[in-house]
This record gives sequence, C-alpha cells and structure tokens, in this order.
Amino acid sequence: MDRFVCTRCGRTSDADVFSIFCPACREPLSVASDPARPRTFHLDRPRPLERFLDFLPLELVDPALSLGEGDTPLLHLERLGRRVGWEGLYAKNEAQNPTGSFKDRGTAVAVQKAVALGWRRIGTVSTGNMAVSTAAYGARAGLKTCVLFKEGSSRTSLAAAAIYGPVLVTVRGDYGRLFHESLAVGRELGIYFMNSVDPYRIEGYKAAAFEAYFGLGRTAPEVILVPLSSGGHLLGWMRAFDDLRAAAGLSRYPTFVGVQAAGCAPLARAFASGRERYERLDKADTIAHAISNPAPPAGDSVLRKIRQEQGLIIAVTDEEMLAAQRLLASEEGLFVQPESAVTLAGFIQLLKAGRLGRGERALLVLTGSGLKAMAALEAARFPAPELPLEGLAEGLRRLVET
Amino acid sequence: MDRFVCTRCGRTSDADVFSIFCPACREPLSVASDPARPRTFHLDRPRPLERFLDFLPLELVDPALSLGEGDTPLLHLERLGRRVGWEGLYAKNEAQNPTGSFKDRGTAVAVQKAVALGWRRIGTVSTGNMAVSTAAYGARAGLKTCVLFKEGSSRTSLAAAAIYGPVLVTVRGDYGRLFHESLAVGRELGIYFMNSVDPYRIEGYKAAAFEAYFGLGRTAPEVILVPLSSGGHLLGWMRAFDDLRAAAGLSRYPTFVGVQAAGCAPLARAFASGRERYERLDKADTIAHAISNPAPPAGDSVLRKIRQEQGLIIAVTDEEMLAAQRLLASEEGLFVQPESAVTLAGFIQLLKAGRLGRGERALLVLTGSGLKAMAALEAARFPAPELPLEGLAEGLRRLVET
Repeated sequence: MDRFVCTRCGRTSDADVFSIFCPACREPLSVASDPARPRTFHLDRPRPLERFLDFLPLELVDPALSLGEGDTPLLHLERLGRRVGWEGLYAKNEAQNPTGSFKDRGTAVAVQKAVALGWRRIGTVSTGNMAVSTAAYGARAGLKTCVLFKEGSSRTSLAAAAIYGPVLVTVRGDYGRLFHESLAVGRELGIYFMNSVDPYRIEGYKAAAFEAYFGLGRTAPEVILVPLSSGGHLLGWMRAFDDLRAAAGLSRYPTFVGVQAAGCAPLARAFASGRERYERLDKADTIAHAISNPAPPAGDSVLRKIRQEQGLIIAVTDEEMLAAQRLLASEEGLFVQPESAVTLAGFIQLLKAGRLGRGERALLVLTGSGLKAMAALEAARFPAPELPLEGLAEGLRRLVET
Repeated sequence: MDRFVCTRCGRTSDADVFSIFCPACREPLSVASDPARPRTFHLDRPRPLERFLDFLPLELVDPALSLGEGDTPLLHLERLGRRVGWEGLYAKNEAQNPTGSFKDRGTAVAVQKAVALGWRRIGTVSTGNMAVSTAAYGARAGLKTCVLFKEGSSRTSLAAAAIYGPVLVTVRGDYGRLFHESLAVGRELGIYFMNSVDPYRIEGYKAAAFEAYFGLGRTAPEVILVPLSSGGHLLGWMRAFDDLRAAAGLSRYPTFVGVQAAGCAPLARAFASGRERYERLDKADTIAHAISNPAPPAGDSVLRKIRQEQGLIIAVTDEEMLAAQRLLASEEGLFVQPESAVTLAGFIQLLKAGRLGRGERALLVLTGSGLKAMAALEAARFPAPELPLEGLAEGLRRLVET
C-alpha cells in the first residue's frame, strides 16, 4: 500500500485515489517514496516504466496495458539555436507519445495502478489531451472509462475521445467544481478519476525527465522549460530531479521555468508579485485552451516548489506562442500545439532579457502534437500559388530561387 | 556510389535520383545491395538507422537530420484477438513516427542521402502524409523543400505541410503525369523529388520491418498485412525480409498481404484475375484517399513480387475499414487513419474465409494517425449525453451500469 504525503504540512495517509487533497492544506497530495525500497535505474530494460520502476509507485509493469508510451525523441535544436543565438538548445518531444501528448506518460502509470488496485472503472475531467489519453488507455486495458467534458466543448475534441468508446458526458455547471465533484462521484460509483493532479499521474511524468537526464549523458540541462497549467506536469518533472538528487548524486538542480499563457496566467502573476497563494481568475482569454486553467489545483504547490528550487514562472502572449510554433516547424521540423510552443516563446523572452547564463543548456518540453490544433492553424493563411503542369519547371524556378 | 537495379530485367545503372524507372521495363528501380559490404545487425546502437546501417544505402547517419523516427511500438493485441477469435495478433504502430505516419521512415533515409549527395533542394508530389513528412524533414535539415499538391486539395492538408515553410504549389493538370514530370523538373532545377517509389525512400521502410523481426524475438510473423497504394511501402517491407533471408537465416518467409480500398483496387483486381500487369483506373471512389492511387507506379513490381513470394492482394470496403478503425480504437486504444484500418479489415476477411493457418501470428502494419483524418471521423456521430453537475452521480450511474 502506498502512502500519500502533503508536501506543505508533511501529513501522510494511506493512498486513496479519491482523497488526493490534504484535508488541512487543500493542496494535492504526492506519493511518498518508500524508504525501505532499494532504488536503482535498470537501464538495460527495454521499456521506460521497467527501467525506472524503482522510482515509480508500481510493483510491476504489465505490457498488455501499455500503448508504447515514452522513449520520445530528445533532439538537439542546432539550427534554431543558431537562429536565436544559443548553442545548447534541446527539445524533449513528448508530443510523440501514443495519443500525441505528454498525458500518456501519466495515464500509463495511473492505469497500471488502477488495474493493480482492482478498479474496473476509470475516468477523467478534461476538454482535450487528457480525455483522449485516458479513453485510449482505458480501452487498451479493457476498463469502463468515463470522460466528463465541459459544456460547449468542440465536436472535434469530443470525437477524438469518443472513437475509443468511453462513456462520454458533457456536464453543465462550474468546471472548477466538477474537478472536485468527480472525486466524490468516483468514490460513490467506484470510478478512479485520474485527473490532472492525480498523484499517480504526476509520478508518470517523471519517466520523461529521467529519459532526458540519461539522454544527455547523465547530466541535467541547466534550464528546463515546461508549459504550466494545472501544475501536475511541472511538478512531475521536478519530482524526477528530486529523485536524481537523492539517488544519483545530481550536482546541480536545473532551473525550472513554468510558462503560462498571458491570457490565463494566475501563477505567473502570483510569482511576479511574490505571493504565496495565487488568485483564481474569472476567465481565460487565450487560444491556448490546453493550458488555460483559471484555478489550477496544484497552483500553490507549484509556487512553493518553484521558489524553493529558485525556478521561474513567466507568461507569453498568444502572438509570441504562435510565432514560436512557426519557428519550431520551419527551423526544426517540429509541429506542436501552440500550448507547447510557449516553451520556446518563454526561452526567447528569457534570452532577450539576459536571464540565461552563458554555456547553459536549455531543454524545451514539447507537450502536444500540432495535429491536435489544426483549427488554430487554418486561421493562419499560407500561400500556395497554383501552377499549370505545362511549364511547371519555369514556374517552380521562380519560386525556389527567391 | 550506389547502383540501381531493375527487379524485372536485372539491368543496373549508377544511382541517379532523377532516373528511378527502368528505361526498358518502365518499372521503378531498386537500390542494389553491395556484395562487398559486410552486413551485420548492430543491435547495441541507440537508433534504428544506426542499428540497421549495413542494410541501408548510407555510409553514416547524421543525427542532426533526424526527428527521432522509428522504434515504434510493437503491440500484442490480445483483447482484439480474443474478440475476433485469434490469439497471435500484433500491430506495428508506424503512426507513432514524428509526423504521424510511416512516411517518416522513408523520408529519413532519403534526406540523409540527399545531404550526403550534396543536394540542397528536395521535393515531393503528394496530397497528404508524404507532403507533411517531407516538409518536416526538409525543415529539420535546412533544405529548400518543394511540395507539389494536387489541385483541389483540402486546406487542412495544405496547412499541415505549410506550417514547415516549404515552397508549396498546387498544380493544375493530370496528377499521374505530375509524378513523372516532377523528376524531369527536378533534374532541371536540382530538386531531388523523393516521391512514393523513390528507391531510397523504399529502403527506409525496411527499418520498421527489421524492428518487428527483432521485437518478435528474431522470428517472422507468419502473416504481415500492409495497406497498399503506390506499392513502395509493401515493397520496402518485403525487401527487409529478403535481407533477413539472405543474412539472418530466416526459416520461413512471411505471407505478405497487400490490402487496398475496394473503391480503388487496381492491384487487387489484377491479382484476382491472374494478370501480370494491372489496368489503370479512371477514378477512385473511396474515403481512403491516402491509398487511392488509380495508377500505382510500382503496381506491376508488387504483383510480381507478391506472386513470387506466395502473398496475397485483397480489397476491403469503406464500411469494413471504418468498422475496423472503431474496433482498433475501442478494443486496443489505437486510433488510426481509415487507410491503416484496412489491415485489420483485411485480416478479418481472411479469417472469415478460413485462409489463415492455425497458430499463425499476424502483424498489422498501422501507417497513419487518426488525428490526420478528423474530418472523416466527425461525419460519424458519437453520443454525448449532457448531465447537470447537481446529481451527476445519479446520471453517471445509469450510464456506467448499462
């Protein structure tokens, strides 16, 4: 049996997938690591979850529940680096997971746990990537899967989850409340709702960070930029480096940079003004729906952890993220969601402000495939001149030689 | 310098990326393997192209040109297997390549070759996956990339390629002729057009087949189903097993099954009637645009090779492929293009007809992500009942308990 711990007050309790907030602090709980368990990296094992098993809250890994998540590309962005005047620029492309987003890392671990604990029903509250990921892994595991969508979600989002055959519901009412309500409903109906800050989901994100560390020859990049919304993903990456500090003699903890969309940046605001707790926003005004949470459930935990580790929380505009999206595609062949491009936009912002140290290596964590955001893309116009087949060479010559 | 060879007449010539058809037979040429080159699998190397280097027409691999293609999941489909009454069902999920399709395997090798040969301009003639893949790898490599689209292509297809910043042109005129005309234009303007049956592209597809062979413990599945359009992908997989037969003592060559869409099945027709050459169709009538080539350039080569190796070419209807697409998603969490689901539809067809031997393992080669075909999906309707937040548990109970 795992133990959960509150990282604010230190209170522990037996793990209960329906009670994932500290009753005293209201902050999300974390999985406490078992001090009696020996922890080694088994780098000779084929799959990430098996390689990092000692650092995950799993006894074993059932490959029949996996869709082949992880081992995503770690790319040195030399061309883009030259373009912006920075040599050591890297990307960890989490968009290349089975359903096209980083969520699969967390879902993979949470579903392993669900099956190990004997749950036959799982669910999630999401409008996008997490809905798709949970529906896919639920189908793979043969679990009854409930996806609770926000009223007014797009048909495309619904369809991308619905294809997997989950119980799909749109819920009328306050979306922030739904997050908490789902846990109570889950307890009543025996549905393990693996939402954005579920402790097991967060543990799953650690695997990507471990891969990056070993992919860089057992060194940590000096700066790691992660899109920031609910806070779960960033906390997962930081927990991995906590583990590396404890178990692998990490010499220097990376500077983590959480990047929000300026149109919905409650944590960047709180960070800039030195507040310990963020203020919930009334609304979001950004194209970056996947990271526009006006009331991020792990917000205060992120603020505390980022301060403690001397990280940063910043925000970028929609224009900056769209420009960065184009740059990643045109310079490096990486087509990501605008929500992922915030990392490059944030990096450029830090670079211009002189906030990066010479010789530092910066890692952009890319979170979702651009194929998921085609609607945003089509709004932009791309020139596609029409040429006749007769005389094609002449027409094309003019275009390639300019 | 590589040599090209005609697999029909055996004529060889020095490799020239603009002369990829045999002047005598009009069939696409293949890269001739160099008998003087020692061939070993280097399974300890990190990336597929490096592992299989001796079997590829490359001297070395530049990781700066890679987007992290390959090492795609090989999944045992136990649940789906039970559903259809077949234990040994597997999938190689090529949709999980960097741009979401198998094309990246071929583009990766062709771009390595382009740079090695000193070409600074590349291109392709495509309306979909290949356009996207070539534009992405061209951007990554810093090459000027020309994408020639068919007149009337969808804005979504254009945008998905355009984001990478290629020279993008729509061409008025016969699309089949454009394929050949592009090679002449390429020679004139110094643009290496890496089209569907480009010999280097085809070599790239071998890497996926090698991965499947080693992933299954150095054994070949008895049956391998591949979507069939221009013929390049299927020929690549078969060439890999030719290599394994020659170099690794393969005991039994797999039964390859090329699967076409019934609405555009010139090769299935020719195969069924025992003809050596296929008849070009006037038009295609299927939702499976990515495999609807009425005049597949490697068609006759495929017919000959499939007969020689006692394979099959079959066709499935749009209804069958859409049903198979849903089955892959709902039973295994795999959301693929309808064009990929033809493999499962074809498998079910063979199973029902009693054409599979007991104990055989069948491998479905999944070629493209369902995220690329959202328009096709939205046409289908998915139920998403609306529930109020108040009383959610009651409403949800009814849904999960039915």
